[in-house]
Amino acid sequence: MFTPCKGGITAPKGFQAAGIHCGIKKAKKDLSMVYTSTRASVAAVFTLNKVQAAPILVNKAQLSKSSYARAIVVNSGNANTCTGERGMIDAWAMAHSAACALHIPEEEVHVSSTGVIGQYLPIEKITEGIKTIASLLKPEGHADAAEAIMTTDTFMKECSVKFQIDGKESCIGGMSKGSGMIAPNMATMLAFVTTDVAITPQLLQQALQETVDRTFNRISVDGDTSTNDMVTVLANGEAGNNQLTNVSDAGYAAFYVALEHVLTELSKMIVLDGEGATKFIEVKVTGATTEQAAVQAARSISNSNLVKTAFHGEDANWGRILCAVGYSGIEFNPADVEISFGNVPILRRNYVIDFSEDDAKQVLMKKEIAVTVQLNQGNAEATFWTCDLSKKYVDINANYRT
Amino acid sequence: MFTPCKGGITAPKGFQAAGIHCGIKKAKKDLSMVYTSTRASVAAVFTLNKVQAAPILVNKAQLSKSSYARAIVVNSGNANTCTGERGMIDAWAMAHSAACALHIPEEEVHVSSTGVIGQYLPIEKITEGIKTIASLLKPEGHADAAEAIMTTDTFMKECSVKFQIDGKESCIGGMSKGSGMIAPNMATMLAFVTTDVAITPQLLQQALQETVDRTFNRISVDGDTSTNDMVTVLANGEAGNNQLTNVSDAGYAAFYVALEHVLTELSKMIVLDGEGATKFIEVKVTGATTEQAAVQAARSISNSNLVKTAFHGEDANWGRILCAVGYSGIEFNPADVEISFGNVPILRRNYVIDFSEDDAKQVLMKKEIAVTVQLNQGNAEATFWTCDLSKKYVDINANYRT
Repeated sequence: MFTPCKGGITAPKGFQAAGIHCGIKKAKKDLSMVYTSTRASVAAVFTLNKVQAAPILVNKAQLSKSSYARAIVVNSGNANTCTGERGMIDAWAMAHSAACALHIPEEEVHVSSTGVIGQYLPIEKITEGIKTIASLLKPEGHADAAEAIMTTDTFMKECSVKFQIDGKESCIGGMSKGSGMIAPNMATMLAFVTTDVAITPQLLQQALQETVDRTFNRISVDGDTSTNDMVTVLANGEAGNNQLTNVSDAGYAAFYVALEHVLTELSKMIVLDGEGATKFIEVKVTGATTEQAAVQAARSISNSNLVKTAFHGEDANWGRILCAVGYSGIEFNPADVEISFGNVPILRRNYVIDFSEDDAKQVLMKKEIAVTVQLNQGNAEATFWTCDLSKKYVDINANYRT
Repeated sequence: MFTPCKGGITAPKGFQAAGIHCGIKKAKKDLSMVYTSTRASVAAVFTLNKVQAAPILVNKAQLSKSSYARAIVVNSGNANTCTGERGMIDAWAMAHSAACALHIPEEEVHVSSTGVIGQYLPIEKITEGIKTIASLLKPEGHADAAEAIMTTDTFMKECSVKFQIDGKESCIGGMSKGSGMIAPNMATMLAFVTTDVAITPQLLQQALQETVDRTFNRISVDGDTSTNDMVTVLANGEAGNNQLTNVSDAGYAAFYVALEHVLTELSKMIVLDGEGATKFIEVKVTGATTEQAAVQAARSISNSNLVKTAFHGEDANWGRILCAVGYSGIEFNPADVEISFGNVPILRRNYVIDFSEDDAKQVLMKKEIAVTVQLNQGNAEATFWTCDLSKKYVDINANYRT
C-alpha cells in the first residue's frame, strides 16, 4: 500500500522546514519551524495531564478559532510549563512572531515547547530566532527541524512514506522526539506529521485520534505522562486528490494505513531511544475478551519496574509478567495463560513450565525482544512497546535539574 | 493511649511462636509458627491481584469455615504461587500438618508463603519442619518467628504496644516482612498481628480493613502488587476485657488507635527496608476535596519513577511532583498548588518559585524526607510512604531468579 521514501516532514509537497540555534541551549539547535505554502487541515491530540504547558493551552485556543494551520514553531531546552500568566504571554508571543514573519493569520500558527519545567522562556531570543528561521525555510529542511526538537534524544526520529490515492502520488512525513527526559524534567513526547493529502479537518482529527491510540498511546518508558505531550498533523491537499471527507471514501484506507505506519515508526523510535534503554521490548497480549482488556494487560506489563529490570538482566522471570497481568484489573483465569519469549514457549496452560534456560537466554540476549502473552479468554489482542529499566535510567534522572 | 513494649507477636498474653530452618533455604531460618492457647477471633486482608498464591486461597477457604483460629504457619524461600493443583495440595498439607502437630482443628490453621514463584514447595521438608517447630513454641519466640519470615529483608520488623481497656492491661504485637523482592520474584508483603483483646471476628475484620487502608495500602516500593500479600490478626481475648462487639463500645477506640499504630510502624519498616532504598520519603497531600483524591494524588507521586530518582539524586525537582499529581486523575487547579520539602517552601501559589537550592539540599540530604503538597482545593488529606529509586534496585531485580 505504501513504500518508504526520504524527506521526513518535508517529503510531502508544499512543506518547508528549518532548524536553528537561537540561544536557549548553549550550542545545540533549539528552534524548529514547519511551514506549508497552502493552508492545511490541522488535527492534534494533547496530553491528558491536568498540568498543561502554556503551548498546549495556546494550541487548544487556536483550534477553537480555526481548523486550518500554516505553521508550527517548536523550541527545545525549555518546556514553558508551570510558568503561569507570563508563560501564556510568551507562548502567544511565539505564535504572534511567527505569524508576522510568515505573513499568515496568527490563528494558523501552532506552538510547542520541550525542556526544563518551571522556568520562563528567554522570549526575546526566541522571537529574534523566529525572524531568522522564517527566512531559512526550505523544502529540504526536515533534518534540521528534526534535530532542533531533540533534547536528550540520542538520534533524530524521522519517517516518511509514499502511496497512491485517486491515482495521485501522496506522501506522509513525520518527526518526533522522545523520552530523553529533557534538560531537566519529564519525558516529553512530541510528534509533528505533514501530508499533502486533501482531507477535511474533521476526518483528519478522527484518523489521528484512532491511530494515536494504537501507536503513541501504546508506548511506555517510565509511565510518567508529561505536561507537554502533543501530536499535530498538517494536511495541505497538494497531492491533488479528491478531498477525503468520509471514512468510506476511496483512498481513506490507504491514507489511514500509511498514517498508522508513520506514527508506529515514530513511536517505536521513542522507545528505542528511551532513557538508559538497552533493549526494545514488544509486548503482545492475545486471547483477551476485548481489545481494551488486552491494552490494559499489555500496559501493566510494560509499566512494571520488575518486568523491565528482569529484561535488563536477561532473566526469564515470567512470574513478574503474570503478576503484572494479575494486578492490571482485567478479568482472566491465571491458569489459562501462556507466555512465550520470541519463539520459545516459557509458560504453558495450568502453570506448566518446561523450557530450557539456554533457549530463553538466546532470545533475551537480543536487543529486540518479542513477548507474547496468550490469555486464552477470547480473540482480542493489543501490542505495546517498552524498554528495559537500567541503572543508566537512574543516573540520567537522579540529577537532571542540576 | 498506648506505650511501646517489648515482645513482638508474643507480647500479648497466651501467644507463643518459633522460627526454624527446615531446609527450603540453604542455611537461614525459613519456617515460622505463631500459636495461641486460647482460640482467637481471626481477621485477614489479602492481595487484590487476580493471580493468587495457593496459601491465599487456602486461608479464604478457612475463613469461610471458621472465624476463629489458633495458629499461623509461614514458610519463606518459596511463594507457592502459579503452582496449580499441586500447589493447593501442598498448602493444605501445611495446614493439616500443623493441625495434627498442635492437636487443633484444621480450619483453625492459617498458612502463608513467600519467596520464589512458580516452583513447587519441598513439602516433605516443610511437614517435617512443622512437627519440629510445634515442639519449640515458646512465649519468647517472637524474634525467631520474625527472622524466619524474612527473605531479602535486611532487618527484622517487629512492633508491640500496651494499653488499657476496661482497666485491663492489653497488648498488640506484630511482625512483617517487606519488599526485599524474595529469592526471585516479586515484592511480597506479609504481616501477622496478635492481640489479647477480646473482640468479635466481625469487629476485628472491620478494624483491620480500615487500618490497613491507612497503613499497608499507603506504602509503595515499586508499585507492583504481589500475589502473596496478606495481613492476618489473631485476637485471643486473654486480656479479660468485656468483648468488643461494636464500634461504640468503651475501649474500641483505644484498641483501634493502638492497632493503627502497630500497622503504621510495620508498614514504615517495609519502606525503610525497600529494595535498594537509601531514603524514606513521607508524602503528605493536604487541601484535597476528598480523602480519596488525596490518596490518589499521594499514590501517584509515590509511584513515580521520576520523583523517586530525583529524591535519590537529592534534586529539588518539584516539577515532577506536580506532573505526577497532574496525571493522577484528580480534579484540581495546578496554579493553586504549594509544595514544601521539610520546612522549606519550594513552590508557592501561581507557580511562584523562590527557594534557596542550599536550603532544599539540607532537607534532601537527609535519610528521611517529608514532602507536603498543599492542593488548596479543600480540607481532606492523606499520607503515603515511599522510598527512592536507586541503581541498587536495578541490581537487585535484574538477576533475581538466577
